[in-house]
Amino acid sequence: MSNIQLSTISTLPPKSMDKSDYEEKTKAYIEAIGEMQNMLFAQGKYSLLVVLQGMDASGKDGVIKEVFSGVNPMGCKVKGFKKPTEEEMKHDFLWRVHKEVPEKGMIQIFNRSHYEDVVIQRVHKWVDAATIKRRYAHINAFEQLLEENGTRVLKFYLHVSQEEQIERLKERLSDRKKMWKYNANDLEESKLWKDYMEAYQLAFDHCSGEVPWHIIPADKNWYKEYLIAQVIHDTLKSLNLEYPALS
Amino acid sequence: MSNIQLSTISTLPPKSMDKSDYEEKTKAYIEAIGEMQNMLFAQGKYSLLVVLQGMDASGKDGVIKEVFSGVNPMGCKVKGFKKPTEEEMKHDFLWRVHKEVPEKGMIQIFNRSHYEDVVIQRVHKWVDAATIKRRYAHINAFEQLLEENGTRVLKFYLHVSQEEQIERLKERLSDRKKMWKYNANDLEESKLWKDYMEAYQLAFDHCSGEVPWHIIPADKNWYKEYLIAQVIHDTLKSLNLEYPALS
Repeated sequence: MSNIQLSTISTLPPKSMDKSDYEEKTKAYIEAIGEMQNMLFAQGKYSLLVVLQGMDASGKDGVIKEVFSGVNPMGCKVKGFKKPTEEEMKHDFLWRVHKEVPEKGMIQIFNRSHYEDVVIQRVHKWVDAATIKRRYAHINAFEQLLEENGTRVLKFYLHVSQEEQIERLKERLSDRKKMWKYNANDLEESKLWKDYMEAYQLAFDHCSGEVPWHIIPADKNWYKEYLIAQVIHDTLKSLNLEYPALS
Repeated sequence: MSNIQLSTISTLPPKSMDKSDYEEKTKAYIEAIGEMQNMLFAQGKYSLLVVLQGMDASGKDGVIKEVFSGVNPMGCKVKGFKKPTEEEMKHDFLWRVHKEVPEKGMIQIFNRSHYEDVVIQRVHKWVDAATIKRRYAHINAFEQLLEENGTRVLKFYLHVSQEEQIERLKERLSDRKKMWKYNANDLEESKLWKDYMEAYQLAFDHCSGEVPWHIIPADKNWYKEYLIAQVIHDTLKSLNLEYPALS
């Protein structure tokens, strides 16, 4: 069991923190991530899997655009998981996910992930409770397999308030740059907020052992970006990466 | 037939051009490419396929790192084509390539490509002349298919001198950041320079009809980046991209 209690965690930055204090730090992290990624790629010993989860409009796309703005596209891939295709439905829930894990040297970003299979599927009761429970165990084994093979798995939950979410969804109706993201169904899903929070809480309870979740207060983009950049920076730093010598 | 005559094209910038005059322009192109890529993605109507070819150490990796530094990793993929795998060898030469073409909204970069199948394979005589000739026709039909489906195909040949190449290959022996790229075989291949130039010339002669080649003088990175950023910028601009309205 993790000690994450989602309902007690604020979606806002601490009051003492000011945007201007942190933008410079975020910028420095992003730059350092870019440099370390070159070494990660050259060395080909480790890889990084970044899992982004959160409600609609919680800012997953923004994380990819901003936090990874310093990385070389040659060493970074993004996979968005949507409604499974017919072919995917004919396999176990990890089949389509396993195909997309990073090879050594690479950063792979999952925009949504295998956690949809224990969250949205639980909320809508598309699968029964016993199946969900088995899935938690399969997820833990799967993530452990990746870790043992040199992949560092970083899981981020972008924690927004329902009020902030609804504001952002409505913004998509009026801002031309955001209209393409508008989906009337998102507001329907938002009505199931409590069920989603419960499903996420259960996922954190069951899948935070070896590979912990990072809960990111995400009502303010600058704070979200700062926290995620910091975790990625510190993780890459801990690998003591270096350019390999002549072989 | 194209009117490209590789042997008459300089690998250097015109003498009148100065690095400092162009770095700002390149920066502005890169920024504008990033903005237009957001629209390309949102609109999902067109895609861009960037093909990078050139001798070892001609600077293909550098193009990816620099020219695409402003793009969102969510909308840009890179595929490096290496020695075909056993599975790939059991298919036609375009099979592994076709799988990697961009879906609508995306930018796909090919680091080497199907042109290896008419260049290195011709130089080493791994396939006969009649096969190579048929491949030119298949390549033209394939690229035309992509264009008809909304993909803009941009082909860049990074044109370096053999002297510059050898200098760069030797640099890999002494610069720790570059050692991981060193491959003794590259110097062996360099001895076949004339054969490679001939094979490239033939590819340009036969595969420059509907989808032209851009020959990029590449002894100076700043000039190479400027020219490629300009072509990509102008191509995206010509698509008159816009954010879609509410559907």
